[in-house]
Amino acid sequence: MVPEGDDRERLVCTECGYVRYDNPKIIVGAVCTWEERYLMVRRAIPPREGLWCLPSGFMELGESSEEGAAREVWEEARARVTLTDLLALYNLSHISQVHLIYRGHMRSPDCAAGPESLEVALMDWEHLPWGELAYPNVAWALRQHRAMRGRADFAPLGVPAEDAAGP
Amino acid sequence: MVPEGDDRERLVCTECGYVRYDNPKIIVGAVCTWEERYLMVRRAIPPREGLWCLPSGFMELGESSEEGAAREVWEEARARVTLTDLLALYNLSHISQVHLIYRGHMRSPDCAAGPESLEVALMDWEHLPWGELAYPNVAWALRQHRAMRGRADFAPLGVPAEDAAGP
Repeated sequence: MVPEGDDRERLVCTECGYVRYDNPKIIVGAVCTWEERYLMVRRAIPPREGLWCLPSGFMELGESSEEGAAREVWEEARARVTLTDLLALYNLSHISQVHLIYRGHMRSPDCAAGPESLEVALMDWEHLPWGELAYPNVAWALRQHRAMRGRADFAPLGVPAEDAAGP
Repeated sequence: MVPEGDDRERLVCTECGYVRYDNPKIIVGAVCTWEERYLMVRRAIPPREGLWCLPSGFMELGESSEEGAAREVWEEARARVTLTDLLALYNLSHISQVHLIYRGHMRSPDCAAGPESLEVALMDWEHLPWGELAYPNVAWALRQHRAMRGRADFAPLGVPAEDAAGP
């Protein structure tokens, strides 16, 4: 039903009137490098189990987006990272997600598979597994990271124009 | 309870096992100008009824952050705007909100109070109601908009250092 003063359908409890607002969710992640090599994780869980991803996941209550991105890097790749820039902001409105992807430097080359990862690797650009990426946005972020080498203080990039048409 | 494979408390239905994930919410808004004048709205509804704000509100399902910001400008100030940049990204982690504040140009000086506004005004910088702003982040965004005049392609600004300590 549409609550009084509102203009769209919400889930409302018919007993107590509680309104359950569903809003877009934020995915936080990071393109992390160690000496020009990219930190990649191979997913141990569905969806896209077995495919390669950047460390990323749902932002949690009580954390900042940077804290969330660094937490995901730790949880999935057991790496410590210093985030330097917001590389990209992707609106995936067909699934009501906003992705905030940071750029970061690993503080050491130490990394290991967390419980949600089958494998973790530091990969040269030439050896990135383009054919085995879990999602298109992994490729977007990697390419945009490459394009922004040596640049600082830039506006976060969006979904590439050629991919903006749809899911 | 903590669902299997998870590491934090979630609301879980003891009957069917449905997990209710609560995640941070996104506020979208805009600093909009017409010939150096700022589009301000006076709140008709709690909280902070009667105080001045930038057009902003919760991002909704199925829209992009830019669409949401433009929608809020329309809903609260009945103005049409062209958004040009992401001016600021504020993490308010104590209330689990991420604010995405855009910079925009009004397409005409037309504006009017929407149902959630008592009043709408185009204000010169010198006449902004600094003592009657609804939230500190309204002042942050206005000052940062001023600081970025003439600049493009910059990283979105964050919570000013002097305000970053706490709520």
